[in-house]
Amino acid sequence: MISLTPPPPPPPFLSHRTMAITMSNNQQSSSSNYWTSLNQEIDAHLKQAIPLRPPLSVYEPMHHLTFSAPRTPAPALCIAACELVGGHRDQALPAASALRLMHAAAFTHEQLPALKDRPRPGRPPNYTHKFEPNIELLTGDGLVPFGMELLASSDDPAQEMLDRILRVIVEITRAMGSQGFVEGQYKESQYGGIDGEEAVQVAWIGEVCKKKEGELHACAGACGAILGGGSDEEVEKLRRYGLYVGTIRGIDIISGGVESKDEKLLLLEEVNKLRNLAVEELRGFDQGKVEKISSIIDNECCNV
Amino acid sequence: MISLTPPPPPPPFLSHRTMAITMSNNQQSSSSNYWTSLNQEIDAHLKQAIPLRPPLSVYEPMHHLTFSAPRTPAPALCIAACELVGGHRDQALPAASALRLMHAAAFTHEQLPALKDRPRPGRPPNYTHKFEPNIELLTGDGLVPFGMELLASSDDPAQEMLDRILRVIVEITRAMGSQGFVEGQYKESQYGGIDGEEAVQVAWIGEVCKKKEGELHACAGACGAILGGGSDEEVEKLRRYGLYVGTIRGIDIISGGVESKDEKLLLLEEVNKLRNLAVEELRGFDQGKVEKISSIIDNECCNV
Repeated sequence: MISLTPPPPPPPFLSHRTMAITMSNNQQSSSSNYWTSLNQEIDAHLKQAIPLRPPLSVYEPMHHLTFSAPRTPAPALCIAACELVGGHRDQALPAASALRLMHAAAFTHEQLPALKDRPRPGRPPNYTHKFEPNIELLTGDGLVPFGMELLASSDDPAQEMLDRILRVIVEITRAMGSQGFVEGQYKESQYGGIDGEEAVQVAWIGEVCKKKEGELHACAGACGAILGGGSDEEVEKLRRYGLYVGTIRGIDIISGGVESKDEKLLLLEEVNKLRNLAVEELRGFDQGKVEKISSIIDNECCNV
Repeated sequence: MISLTPPPPPPPFLSHRTMAITMSNNQQSSSSNYWTSLNQEIDAHLKQAIPLRPPLSVYEPMHHLTFSAPRTPAPALCIAACELVGGHRDQALPAASALRLMHAAAFTHEQLPALKDRPRPGRPPNYTHKFEPNIELLTGDGLVPFGMELLASSDDPAQEMLDRILRVIVEITRAMGSQGFVEGQYKESQYGGIDGEEAVQVAWIGEVCKKKEGELHACAGACGAILGGGSDEEVEKLRRYGLYVGTIRGIDIISGGVESKDEKLLLLEEVNKLRNLAVEELRGFDQGKVEKISSIIDNECCNV
């Protein structure tokens, strides 16, 4: 549906780096606090949903695997998108938590022998398995429906959110499924099969990152906008914004494992292109809020 | 929520076997045709949803693993429950298909090395893996959100089914999750750890079957009744009906792998008890339809 190739003509140069230069130290610190506070709210919501209570054989692995998985910025983006279109963060909190759980489930399954034994750049080093593979497999299987349950049962009748919640369930299931995140994991598992030429490698990395982190964040942006009551145009703009920043996030993760300097340079070019495309999607929104949501790139997605 | 222990006092004897004796050959054949036609409709719906089209790397495993998994009677029960309370079968078809997909996903993951290498009675013999474990893991992961997507996107605005669909999503996610089917799989995987006394074995089998097939069919009965517009009382009766017939189905599968005669006898007693409890739940419904739905026991669940 959304394709990064062929890329649209480059927009006038307006990188987030340029914006950052014009931001005071106070503004930078306030941006960082914004993401910290969103992530803390999601943590608190999930800790309440998955208490450490009996039976520990069920709750301990759910708790551990949810909170030990690397944190993705997608859930916080979902809330930020909701606030950008004028919604309240509580409207997006269950969807954000569902995204976090589904991402943790996918990460947990990636550590199983069936997927682990394949060489890929950017793997988290020294992943320590606290549980046997049967528990990790089943806990991952349990986290996905649990995330959906949190979301589907979150409706407050007074808010008349039924239709929005169903739309969001469709969005999330598509983004996580066989033509979204799972397809990205499949492509990623084919790494050993491609030849080593740099341009090919970079294209492969771009494709994996688009299907995995790209579409996850695209979904997060779209869901936040839907839940906050955004227009169709706003939903699509935030979907594209999410696609660009998510792909940046993916490249950021993988590029840590890339050794060739030329390849790193090509990836940096790609990141800069995506950064410009992302910022362009935010034109027309409330300027104060744009500064907040656009700060996700340097605060949460990108260390390159 | 629903517990089989302690069992309620035995109702007056009214076994389905007794009913079957009074049924003519024509009625028996019509019951069997009923389940065949429901299963064919679910098959057709799924074949349309998962066509064999490019990219084959995605659609071929989805197709194969969905249709090669042992068929569970739960999806057909979901439709039968919908019809019993006066609904149209089209209202339950997406939920029935979702149940089939989620069951296929769970079965696929059970064949992975992480769960496979554990001795358990009633395992399907000679399961042939057509794909590598990475594909089976990822395809299972893709089938679950795909089932949810089919269901969440099935709303026809004219029918105002939004609230029923969301209720059903909550029902299915609970039944498939860490306190339902997944918990049953966990208990099942602990088989090697229990001692061999017959009463203990039978209790263990009962517990596994209640959490796996029992709660899956309980969910199917409740979902069908919700979608067909049944009252709360009807939903709860069909939930219990599903729990009993599903547990019978589970025992039927496992008992094929039980060798001890005494153990087989204890299981048969349990099945007869459940059969009576199940039929009791159907009192008060339309008698013509009751004959149809109660025939699931001998047609689909039980060969003992």
